[in-house]
Amino acid sequence: MKIAILFGGLSFEHEISIVSSIAMKDILKDELIYLYIDGKRDIYEIPTQKINSKLFSSGEYRKFDRAYFKKGGFYKISGLFKKEQSIDFDVVLNLSHGGDGEDGILSSILDFYNIPFIAPRTEACVVSSNKFITKGYAKSVDVNVLDYKYYTKNDDIKVDMFPVIVKPVKLGSSIGVAIVKSKEELDYSLDVAFEFDDAIIIEPFISGVKEYNLAGTKVNGEFIFSIIEEPQKAEFLDFDKKYLDFSRTSKAKEVDLGDKLNQEIKESFKRLYNTLFEGSIIRCDFFVVDEKVYLNEINSIPGSMANYLFTDFEELFKKVALTLPKRKEIAINYEYVNKIQVAKGK
Amino acid sequence: MKIAILFGGLSFEHEISIVSSIAMKDILKDELIYLYIDGKRDIYEIPTQKINSKLFSSGEYRKFDRAYFKKGGFYKISGLFKKEQSIDFDVVLNLSHGGDGEDGILSSILDFYNIPFIAPRTEACVVSSNKFITKGYAKSVDVNVLDYKYYTKNDDIKVDMFPVIVKPVKLGSSIGVAIVKSKEELDYSLDVAFEFDDAIIIEPFISGVKEYNLAGTKVNGEFIFSIIEEPQKAEFLDFDKKYLDFSRTSKAKEVDLGDKLNQEIKESFKRLYNTLFEGSIIRCDFFVVDEKVYLNEINSIPGSMANYLFTDFEELFKKVALTLPKRKEIAINYEYVNKIQVAKGK
Repeated sequence: MKIAILFGGLSFEHEISIVSSIAMKDILKDELIYLYIDGKRDIYEIPTQKINSKLFSSGEYRKFDRAYFKKGGFYKISGLFKKEQSIDFDVVLNLSHGGDGEDGILSSILDFYNIPFIAPRTEACVVSSNKFITKGYAKSVDVNVLDYKYYTKNDDIKVDMFPVIVKPVKLGSSIGVAIVKSKEELDYSLDVAFEFDDAIIIEPFISGVKEYNLAGTKVNGEFIFSIIEEPQKAEFLDFDKKYLDFSRTSKAKEVDLGDKLNQEIKESFKRLYNTLFEGSIIRCDFFVVDEKVYLNEINSIPGSMANYLFTDFEELFKKVALTLPKRKEIAINYEYVNKIQVAKGK
Repeated sequence: MKIAILFGGLSFEHEISIVSSIAMKDILKDELIYLYIDGKRDIYEIPTQKINSKLFSSGEYRKFDRAYFKKGGFYKISGLFKKEQSIDFDVVLNLSHGGDGEDGILSSILDFYNIPFIAPRTEACVVSSNKFITKGYAKSVDVNVLDYKYYTKNDDIKVDMFPVIVKPVKLGSSIGVAIVKSKEELDYSLDVAFEFDDAIIIEPFISGVKEYNLAGTKVNGEFIFSIIEEPQKAEFLDFDKKYLDFSRTSKAKEVDLGDKLNQEIKESFKRLYNTLFEGSIIRCDFFVVDEKVYLNEINSIPGSMANYLFTDFEELFKKVALTLPKRKEIAINYEYVNKIQVAKGK
């Protein structure tokens, strides 16, 4: 199988996407091709053997072929005669974290051009990338969420109890997120959060809360789960920790929470994944408070695809690639327009 | 102002989009150009003076220039020398009803290629086009919705109380919708609904419920509302009624529900529109039951843009076109990737 890794994009997580994509070289033994979307949303085909992080920061990537979307795939103008060529691959892995990749932009484009891809479809992207919409959705599928308040830029924001956690609604990887311990710290953290987004949510911050991650997918109607991991936590993710998270390839350690909680986490995952997330491999991060499971967030395109949580990620990847959801067929037969013509006597 | 009307698309409401778009000739006095997306998602530039419904059913549209998306706009290969030309316009009006237009696909593409457009952005499209997600969102912004059950294709579906209304989650214009009066009718109506979608919602059907429509938009932070209309209702929309609805250009009659209800409908609209729907003109359909306002649905691209509800639609349209939301600027500076290189000693 030939896999096209589509990464980068107009996103605050652009660089994390580069790290995550380079890691895939060690994770997938298949033939890979790399399609990089730069900050101007120009697309370049980067030869796999040339991939390294310096290529991007130096701007050197611009010397490679420009690619573009077209029905059925990606194309480039290349070769001696500057002719249009289609770029050969079997499936796209959308590895653009944050904006473009996770907010539904790329999924929409891939869908429009009828390009097979692994990632949530547009609706699932929106539901998981906007934390406010996630909360409403989780409640609708009977999954617990922590209390929260939603604010947009010009709202009057009142916080009575501290500590709280302030989050821009649309960013992942802890960008713009702050734990606020007192009224004095609030204004600054709001300024930071609104720097990244026009809307935020504020949640109570529960110190030392237990977090558990579960990744999974659905193949032919059956769920396939990873192990459950209790991730290492730091109050803030520093540079090293974040780098390690997105370039992670070595297997994680399974945690056993007992039958009841293990089961509750898996059932919550199933209700969230539902039919909406078909075609994707996602990681759900849960809190456990007083033996009750709460959704923290849905990572619709997790760092390095959460490969480290699965026993055989490559096999799983192939299964998903071979059972991607199909769009409903829509026959356009102009029956209705014909009736109008008859009605009008045209 | 030169307006590009983007219509059609891979949608069960393809033909309604044709009707709606043709109606715009009578509504907007500006220079219009027409970009038609056919059932294969090929795009054609149709000369405005040639527009009529027969052009589409006869397949004649295929003789016009093929257009395609590209950064900043639409392009075509045209003229004697078969050179690439950009198609000139100031703003796109996305008038593709249902799939592609209202589900976020086209908004994503327009956003990716940095093309100014009037329509909800991707997130707002998803929130309004999927009735299940709409319900969760409405609750999150404290707007009442009728009770409902959500089912996907292989669920065990039990209904105890009749009549109910069965709706595919993703379709508008009453397609696939059925009022079910008894257990005997249920199976057939489920078959029909699942014909159009993999997920449905079932609501109690309230006979003779009062429905009120309000359209509106936000310009520079201020809401601009249409009149409130009590639409004519038939138990089912028949062909003539539907045609009239989507080609409607003559002014509607205002209904006065008294200060309290008028206000409650407007407040509900504001909470739904919020910041999420900026850049769009939408119509919200409400029910009033026992003096309480409930959201029925959000029409994110209403038939003929709900022009008939506004006193001066043209002026409103221009205001929206001139104050479209801007994306947050994202500077990609490779700071993080540079740190990795330093850390690795590269």
